[in-house]
Amino acid sequence: MNKAELVKQIQKKKSFLCVGLDADLEKIPAHLLSLEDPLFEFSRQIIDATHHVAVAFKPNTAFFEAYGIKGWKALEKINKYIKKEYPEIFTIADAKRGDIGNTSTRYAKAFFEDLNFDSVTVAPYMGRDSVEPFLAFEDKFTIMLALTSNPGGLDFQTFQDQNGFHLYEKVLQTSLTWKNADRLMYVVGATRPEYFQKIRKIVPDHFLLVPGVGAQGGSLEDVCAYGLNKEVGLLVNSSRGIIYASDKEYFAKVAREKAEELQQEMSKLLLTHFE
Amino acid sequence: MNKAELVKQIQKKKSFLCVGLDADLEKIPAHLLSLEDPLFEFSRQIIDATHHVAVAFKPNTAFFEAYGIKGWKALEKINKYIKKEYPEIFTIADAKRGDIGNTSTRYAKAFFEDLNFDSVTVAPYMGRDSVEPFLAFEDKFTIMLALTSNPGGLDFQTFQDQNGFHLYEKVLQTSLTWKNADRLMYVVGATRPEYFQKIRKIVPDHFLLVPGVGAQGGSLEDVCAYGLNKEVGLLVNSSRGIIYASDKEYFAKVAREKAEELQQEMSKLLLTHFE
Repeated sequence: MNKAELVKQIQKKKSFLCVGLDADLEKIPAHLLSLEDPLFEFSRQIIDATHHVAVAFKPNTAFFEAYGIKGWKALEKINKYIKKEYPEIFTIADAKRGDIGNTSTRYAKAFFEDLNFDSVTVAPYMGRDSVEPFLAFEDKFTIMLALTSNPGGLDFQTFQDQNGFHLYEKVLQTSLTWKNADRLMYVVGATRPEYFQKIRKIVPDHFLLVPGVGAQGGSLEDVCAYGLNKEVGLLVNSSRGIIYASDKEYFAKVAREKAEELQQEMSKLLLTHFE
Repeated sequence: MNKAELVKQIQKKKSFLCVGLDADLEKIPAHLLSLEDPLFEFSRQIIDATHHVAVAFKPNTAFFEAYGIKGWKALEKINKYIKKEYPEIFTIADAKRGDIGNTSTRYAKAFFEDLNFDSVTVAPYMGRDSVEPFLAFEDKFTIMLALTSNPGGLDFQTFQDQNGFHLYEKVLQTSLTWKNADRLMYVVGATRPEYFQKIRKIVPDHFLLVPGVGAQGGSLEDVCAYGLNKEVGLLVNSSRGIIYASDKEYFAKVAREKAEELQQEMSKLLLTHFE
């Protein structure tokens, strides 16, 4: 999928909602556990219930890998299902990979070709030659960690040089010099609204994937105040707040309501921003 | 496996060699491709040919994941094979994972429990709560990237504060304050010998996993000069220089010779260091 198609979808749905598919056998409704493939079945119901207001789905690969081969198969099946039923939706393999040259190429092939995801998340610690192999794939996006929403995000990401320049700023700035840098997006946590202004100065045109709204305490309004750009430029993720809003048989209905609530809030913020 | 068992094995074999199992269908000898499971068969022959001089085996998980479910099954089979035939050998899942809290726990369970590896490599960018979940596992080791051997390793890892303190030093120092920090090891590239002295001042007692000897140009002698500690404290990895030394039917014999050469060099350096 290219950027124009993503932007078009956002405008059409008046939504920049990404639903995080963290399918966890310990948390999904008990009545699904007796099914043959509960990971897929749970995800499928969430997808069907939220696709009309979501522009992206983001399975966290760890939750699938944890179940070994069975989990890997479910992940494959989920992406195929989305691509078949809702081809307009942007898919993100939240894998946070990062390794050198030929190894990164392997990971890129695994996620972009074998599993056919539109994008994958990567970690920046190993630098240019750990990320450029991902950027070589046309119409695919590489979403690099910049400033994350978890408490430990401040352990190293805000380490600063003598001019007060932070590591996350260095990461953003340096990445712009890499080959095919226009295929980058960045992870920036919703819990760090005070940094969004600085970030938008360095990467005014790139998409930001923003976790941390809801359960982690980030505010959608704060994120939009500085994060929105002329093409919207945001994908705001919600996982737990939608997919685990209910553990009853009607969980998908509740998930739909929660997703619709977020979309309505987004629609209003877009209206304010673009009027 | 605990540290004492690893050290005992190193002393017995007079070796601190780790053989990297980067099984790549594009590089393995052609005659293996017609077999049912070439990834496993290649790795098994390398393991059998080098186990007497190796103290650790390190499959790079990307090379297996790239083949989807088939690859994942091969990885599982390889670790089972090592644990059954050579239970004294330390196994490393080179996965470079890093994610928040409950996701890290999932990864840790996948590698430590389901696949039963002794250790896994992780990236530090997301900080404390991305690594501590791995450290919760007894008799398992978490090998964190500190200063890597690839060119891009200098993009961010040597970013420095006003006192000339580098990011990799900050990562090492900070990690010592984490819960169960004695279960940490660190990745330090052999191509950076000038940094080993600084690193040993911060982490005198921890094991270092050292890639970059051989194909990437690092010198074993330089690594030992500052890297060795009272318990040896080094696992030096070689992948391509051993496993792809020959692509003929007798590749395993050549791999054995290359591994034995490295072990002999290690044995001499240990003798010099401990005499």
